[in-house]
Amino acid sequence: MYDGPLDNLVKLIASLPGLGSRSAKRIALYLLTHKEGTMLPLARALQECADAISECERCGNLDTAQPCRICRDQARDTRTVCVVATVADLWAIERTGSYKGRYHVLGGVLSALDGIGPDDLSIDTLMNKIQQNDISEVIIALSATVDGQSTAHVLTDHILDIKGDVKITKLAHGVPIGGELDYLDDGTIATALQSRA
Amino acid sequence: MYDGPLDNLVKLIASLPGLGSRSAKRIALYLLTHKEGTMLPLARALQECADAISECERCGNLDTAQPCRICRDQARDTRTVCVVATVADLWAIERTGSYKGRYHVLGGVLSALDGIGPDDLSIDTLMNKIQQNDISEVIIALSATVDGQSTAHVLTDHILDIKGDVKITKLAHGVPIGGELDYLDDGTIATALQSRA
Repeated sequence: MYDGPLDNLVKLIASLPGLGSRSAKRIALYLLTHKEGTMLPLARALQECADAISECERCGNLDTAQPCRICRDQARDTRTVCVVATVADLWAIERTGSYKGRYHVLGGVLSALDGIGPDDLSIDTLMNKIQQNDISEVIIALSATVDGQSTAHVLTDHILDIKGDVKITKLAHGVPIGGELDYLDDGTIATALQSRA
Repeated sequence: MYDGPLDNLVKLIASLPGLGSRSAKRIALYLLTHKEGTMLPLARALQECADAISECERCGNLDTAQPCRICRDQARDTRTVCVVATVADLWAIERTGSYKGRYHVLGGVLSALDGIGPDDLSIDTLMNKIQQNDISEVIIALSATVDGQSTAHVLTDHILDIKGDVKITKLAHGVPIGGELDYLDDGTIATALQSRA
């Protein structure tokens, strides 16, 4: 019964991450009953963001400026590059306010299961960046998953191949702030013990 | 750092039912990395639905047609009206395919806590509809909540005041199909026992 435009809208909403067909229907109904307040402003905001925001050609961040604000910020340390898998990870690190270098967004991590190989990620541009610029430290900030760590391993090998004197660091593993020991997995506790300081 | 258009987009997405600022950020990022496939089609679909879909002036359903397809369907029983709180409820009943009468969308239920009084709902138009048309049965299909049931009570009184010979029915209470007795609340089991057949 909901053929045509509404069916199309529900399908598009259901394709967003974290939403299914039930929540999509609920959202579509909410939008239709809040046309002036939410639906039309949302349509305009989507169009506006699609027009205004693009991938930074230097680091892969998403911004209205090209290159992005982080790449243009002369106050930031240009000799340190933090390698992240996604823009979401970049934003997560920026949120902390504790990093003042540049970034490089890989676009994912190597994954045999998901069929993601080196050509699907921006590994070549990272290597060019490291080779052509005066980079002293590369921080590999990938997730502590099997895929993330094997990608980190591959990247470390690559980087040392082309520039032996660059410092390569990784995020520390350990007990999360506010984390209760009792609820932590054994691997994390073991790592935290080994890396004690 | 996400000022301007992106911040606005995230806020609008976060205002949708079931979404918060974290999931909104995740969705916004997904949209920005799927511009052609999802973001622009979604913007167009929102605009299209906002233009094409409106509230049926007879029953309150949302449809591209005016009056809606249900109100125009001559094969449906015009003497039976099913009163629902929201369009979502109307769609839920339509999904079953087991009702062939007309509808009336109240726009909510009476609620002292939420400050929703009789003037906020389309009770007057329902009464006019019952008075002016040849209605033989009114099915009050409101939720089995305190507010839903007290609204049903008020409606029943009103309807009997203006038309004493109309049949007023409610949805049956009982064990949901596929429901395990052990997980059901006592009230439902007691009701199902009393209404046994």
